[in-house]
Amino acid sequence: MAGQSNKSFILNSVKDVGFVDRPIPKIENPHDVLVSISYTGICGSDVHYWQSGGIGKFQVKEPMVLGHESAGVIAEVGPAVTTLKVGDRVAVEPGYPCRHCGSCLAGKYNLCPKMQFAATPPYHGTLTGFWTAPEDFCYKLPENMSLQEGALIEPTAVAVHIAHLANIRPGQSVVVMGAGPVGLLSAAVAKAFGASTVVSVDIVQSKLDFALGFAATHTYVSQRIPAEENAENIKAVAGLPDGADVVIDATGAEPSIQASIHVLKPGGHYIQGGMGKSDINFPIMALAAKEAIVQGCFRYGYGDYKLAVELVASGKINAKSMISDTVAFEQAEQAFEKVHGGQVIKVLIAGPNQKLE
Amino acid sequence: MAGQSNKSFILNSVKDVGFVDRPIPKIENPHDVLVSISYTGICGSDVHYWQSGGIGKFQVKEPMVLGHESAGVIAEVGPAVTTLKVGDRVAVEPGYPCRHCGSCLAGKYNLCPKMQFAATPPYHGTLTGFWTAPEDFCYKLPENMSLQEGALIEPTAVAVHIAHLANIRPGQSVVVMGAGPVGLLSAAVAKAFGASTVVSVDIVQSKLDFALGFAATHTYVSQRIPAEENAENIKAVAGLPDGADVVIDATGAEPSIQASIHVLKPGGHYIQGGMGKSDINFPIMALAAKEAIVQGCFRYGYGDYKLAVELVASGKINAKSMISDTVAFEQAEQAFEKVHGGQVIKVLIAGPNQKLE
Amino acid sequence: MAGQSNKSFILNSVKDVGFVDRPIPKIENPHDVLVSISYTGICGSDVHYWQSGGIGKFQVKEPMVLGHESAGVIAEVGPAVTTLKVGDRVAVEPGYPCRHCGSCLAGKYNLCPKMQFAATPPYHGTLTGFWTAPEDFCYKLPENMSLQEGALIEPTAVAVHIAHLANIRPGQSVVVMGAGPVGLLSAAVAKAFGASTVVSVDIVQSKLDFALGFAATHTYVSQRIPAEENAENIKAVAGLPDGADVVIDATGAEPSIQASIHVLKPGGHYIQGGMGKSDINFPIMALAAKEAIVQGCFRYGYGDYKLAVELVASGKINAKSMISDTVAFEQAEQAFEKVHGGQVIKVLIAGPNQKLE
Amino acid sequence: MAGQSNKSFILNSVKDVGFVDRPIPKIENPHDVLVSISYTGICGSDVHYWQSGGIGKFQVKEPMVLGHESAGVIAEVGPAVTTLKVGDRVAVEPGYPCRHCGSCLAGKYNLCPKMQFAATPPYHGTLTGFWTAPEDFCYKLPENMSLQEGALIEPTAVAVHIAHLANIRPGQSVVVMGAGPVGLLSAAVAKAFGASTVVSVDIVQSKLDFALGFAATHTYVSQRIPAEENAENIKAVAGLPDGADVVIDATGAEPSIQASIHVLKPGGHYIQGGMGKSDINFPIMALAAKEAIVQGCFRYGYGDYKLAVELVASGKINAKSMISDTVAFEQAEQAFEKVHGGQVIKVLIAGPNQKLE
Repeated sequence: MAGQSNKSFILNSVKDVGFVDRPIPKIENPHDVLVSISYTGICGSDVHYWQSGGIGKFQVKEPMVLGHESAGVIAEVGPAVTTLKVGDRVAVEPGYPCRHCGSCLAGKYNLCPKMQFAATPPYHGTLTGFWTAPEDFCYKLPENMSLQEGALIEPTAVAVHIAHLANIRPGQSVVVMGAGPVGLLSAAVAKAFGASTVVSVDIVQSKLDFALGFAATHTYVSQRIPAEENAENIKAVAGLPDGADVVIDATGAEPSIQASIHVLKPGGHYIQGGMGKSDINFPIMALAAKEAIVQGCFRYGYGDYKLAVELVASGKINAKSMISDTVAFEQAEQAFEKVHGGQVIKVLIAGPNQKLE
Repeated sequence: MAGQSNKSFILNSVKDVGFVDRPIPKIENPHDVLVSISYTGICGSDVHYWQSGGIGKFQVKEPMVLGHESAGVIAEVGPAVTTLKVGDRVAVEPGYPCRHCGSCLAGKYNLCPKMQFAATPPYHGTLTGFWTAPEDFCYKLPENMSLQEGALIEPTAVAVHIAHLANIRPGQSVVVMGAGPVGLLSAAVAKAFGASTVVSVDIVQSKLDFALGFAATHTYVSQRIPAEENAENIKAVAGLPDGADVVIDATGAEPSIQASIHVLKPGGHYIQGGMGKSDINFPIMALAAKEAIVQGCFRYGYGDYKLAVELVASGKINAKSMISDTVAFEQAEQAFEKVHGGQVIKVLIAGPNQKLE
Repeated sequence: MAGQSNKSFILNSVKDVGFVDRPIPKIENPHDVLVSISYTGICGSDVHYWQSGGIGKFQVKEPMVLGHESAGVIAEVGPAVTTLKVGDRVAVEPGYPCRHCGSCLAGKYNLCPKMQFAATPPYHGTLTGFWTAPEDFCYKLPENMSLQEGALIEPTAVAVHIAHLANIRPGQSVVVMGAGPVGLLSAAVAKAFGASTVVSVDIVQSKLDFALGFAATHTYVSQRIPAEENAENIKAVAGLPDGADVVIDATGAEPSIQASIHVLKPGGHYIQGGMGKSDINFPIMALAAKEAIVQGCFRYGYGDYKLAVELVASGKINAKSMISDTVAFEQAEQAFEKVHGGQVIKVLIAGPNQKLE
Repeated sequence: MAGQSNKSFILNSVKDVGFVDRPIPKIENPHDVLVSISYTGICGSDVHYWQSGGIGKFQVKEPMVLGHESAGVIAEVGPAVTTLKVGDRVAVEPGYPCRHCGSCLAGKYNLCPKMQFAATPPYHGTLTGFWTAPEDFCYKLPENMSLQEGALIEPTAVAVHIAHLANIRPGQSVVVMGAGPVGLLSAAVAKAFGASTVVSVDIVQSKLDFALGFAATHTYVSQRIPAEENAENIKAVAGLPDGADVVIDATGAEPSIQASIHVLKPGGHYIQGGMGKSDINFPIMALAAKEAIVQGCFRYGYGDYKLAVELVASGKINAKSMISDTVAFEQAEQAFEKVHGGQVIKVLIAGPNQKLE
């Protein structure tokens, strides 16, 4: 690490970001590795912290390094590490679960109340030079996968987690609300899980055009009409008179959630993937009468990252095509501005020690 | 059937009920039986049709016989019937599924779009003298079970269905919102399924007093305070700092549903058992962050009636103690008034050919 | 049907087959249709009945028409039929469940004790001119699917049922014992379900060569060595040091079943798809120590045929490539000889009214 | 710990046991506690190691302290421990999972290949003075539960794990093969899970007499007749013409396993709880034709110990009645002789620092 920087992109307070030099972290747990960060994607939640200082109960009170969608190169390994070595290229699952609580023991570490997760207050994120991670939370990239693609594994793992929760099965019909990165990846993962009908819904036609090339079999431009009418239109467009087996919301928007419930078929399964207002007007009786399921979704769990790597490596998901731009670390704020502007799909920021290729 | 009446208690239009003589139905399907109705419980939905003429998409347009919670005696059997004979005492599951649609073939006949269900427009109900039913929808009462208890199997089956959907497991904690008949039975079924903590919540102290003797291990009187505060109080009362494994709403009331979501533990399971307003203000992000499940619930399915009979017969559920009153057929309207008045738990109406014991 | 024959290929007794003219069946149930049989595949079980007169508890006591893998054209519809019309081309699911027993109501009609299944004594099969079937057991063929492909839907549905039982998930590793028709289709369905490793195992190299082009990612020629050694070899060949997530036996052979258990990973899932000796030497403690699951498999159930049609129609399974030969109805016995000889994959027999194309 | 002994009961080699003084272990992991062992039950596997030196792949090569069914008192806590304090009485789950492998992360730590489990070579057991354990593997005993009962939590957890694997549901029928400690507890747990029929099967009438008072609703003395006949007899005795929903083997004996498969109903679930010969003659086709499930069972996992404590504390399982005798530490070998002799149900050995009450 001699001569290498741990420069970090830090959120000081709402709308106030900057760069700071911090000491390179040391491996404290023998099962940990040190990763030199190569590329980090910008997530909507990063932008949200920057613009508003918090998401729900997570409020930024101290300066916090942003970023959590990263890939990098192993720079050092702890003494108990056996499956990784210096130089290995990895996608990083950016959290430390406690491994001792009921959620961890039950195989749901994403629900661990002691989880230390990157760029979730009060924990620093991965827009930095070096990052420690548990060995089992680093996933080797196959030779045919670039480090830029590696930075897209995190949002792909979100989409895989959604598909696992919804238990998407071959032959099913899936409607995805929203054609941003998570919506697009949810559509692609649904298809990779064997869904025969995948409908992307958004308010922006150009996003749907991309979705159609990326994964969707059908698209629908959501209108400013009652939710039930949008739902009927979606059913008609996709040839699903009884409704969809699975509906995934990747918007967090009230009208989208309402339409989602109405588009579900009896016994259907809805996943709340997007984040938005805490409380919304919700068609609870429509849900009840069809005995449908609404399930929350929080990050990802065991198996999600591994499968995300496989789906991208095998070409089932063309993650690369989602990269709108890759910028140098020093351009981080401008990259955030771009994402905030909404004209891009996914922007990557190179690590401070990473030469832009 | 010679000399026996098929007098029926009919809803002519909103708040206008009366008695009408109809011909005794004939067995048309060789798998059907004719049941002489002995007792019928009054359900909240019956009262609702009477008072408002409809529930959601089900609107009463033609006069409709009310009632669907019935037990009776087999009066005649179709030629293909092998397991029932004249004189058998049975609880009647009051619906005809189509047996050919995807829901029926998949084992979810309660979601059959062609289901013909008693006292759900446009189908007549069981407050009548004779009723035909499929052989496999009639459940023999054990010798130690009375026909009055038999009339309580229907709401017990609702509670069993809820428990099956929620997959209640031994050792779990269950909160039940509402201490009316379905709430009480849901609490009792939860206990029979092995729940170690069963909390009944209502706004009426006297109902909770009954619940405590009936099944609950803890009770809580819901207050006019924010939903999250009620939720915190429930957790404190029941010693569930992380929240409840399962929450069942048997009220349909907005404040109750909101508190339910907040009282769920991460990964918890909520069942919407009660009926109420179509759309409510709903804490969707609280649900999402804990990856909890909200599931609708509609009637009952395979196995629910059978288990309901067993739970009552074995004494695990003291259904009898819920019967506030039993009246003669001619007193049907007064019985409805009583239930509407809210001072009773469950009122039974004897069939027109049933002598009151 | 005027001028059309209901000639049938009948098994009189062990190794004694012939042709017989029977009256064209009449629609008795209003939900039934009459199908003019176009093509029928020969199944191992047909050959087994022919050669030995029975399979397990099913013994041929009266002459029985053979065949159950058929596709045909709707010739007549019952009065209650709404989704099919004369001329529709369909794959036929060749059974009549009772629709009233516990298995049927629970959504497992394949376990119905009253199931009347084609070419399972005492019920006649589909190597005949006309066949009645329930409307909901006939599956329309998409325009791009031939009637010959339609005859392959039955074995494909067997493979889909296996995949459903094993709950094959994207990214899993699947080992398939046997590269006959069901083994090949199981491999192809596993791949369509997203398995990333699919290993075909057989004792015949040429079958494995076909399997590799058809679906397998790896193959292994089973040796006459201890089962545990074959298992270790399979793991080595496929790069599965911890064993396979799913193992499917499509042979029924004792050495294959033994190796299957040893190749399972801890918590793995094994499906007994093949038929063979009633009792075998079985490594029960190896199973116990890894808490693995062994599950029987019997025909197919709700959703299997529908998905089979989709997988073939979409090209995910190249069923057509499995057809070794198609012969005229009069050549039925010779076709059986060919299948018995073992040098073919799948042979189809045209219906008696079907011109060979 | 001053003045306290860490005397241990050690297996030197086959049939050669003795006592040895070892240093009191030190807490090395900050999440660990030190437990002063109060009582330890003797398990069949302890006896097996003593008599034959190994079980399957686990062979005793170095002297090994025996015992793993223990309860004790917290003597010291590591610096990261927050929920236990010195003096707490606990049941000890006697294993150290790695917490980093796929099995651990997936919530199945019992399948962890690096598990260090008490009295499983090469790891020492709990028949010793002091024992370290992870905080989250120690379960506080309620005030109304004695330390002797605490020593029975381990076999109860085995039975709970079996019930969880079999997914025993209220109203089901359960047949338990064997009426030794695990068989008895499996019957009791099945009943606590709501099974309405619980059949205990053994070859010894007196054990069945105990089983009937303990938990069983029916019993059957297994005969030296073909397995299918024993199966038919069991069905007849218990009034289960279609077979049992769940069958649990707690014997490991070949005739018992064979009868188990034949007694299963279509779609039924069998758990291999007992240990015995590696390979047995097994009715695989009977299993296949009814699409039943056979599942291995290995120790216990998350939630099992906790529920075991609750079931015993609530009185749903009268574990205490299984204790045939409690002896001083110095009598350990004699206690093993007694268990080997077979005339007792469960014998406890007091810890070397525990005064016999």
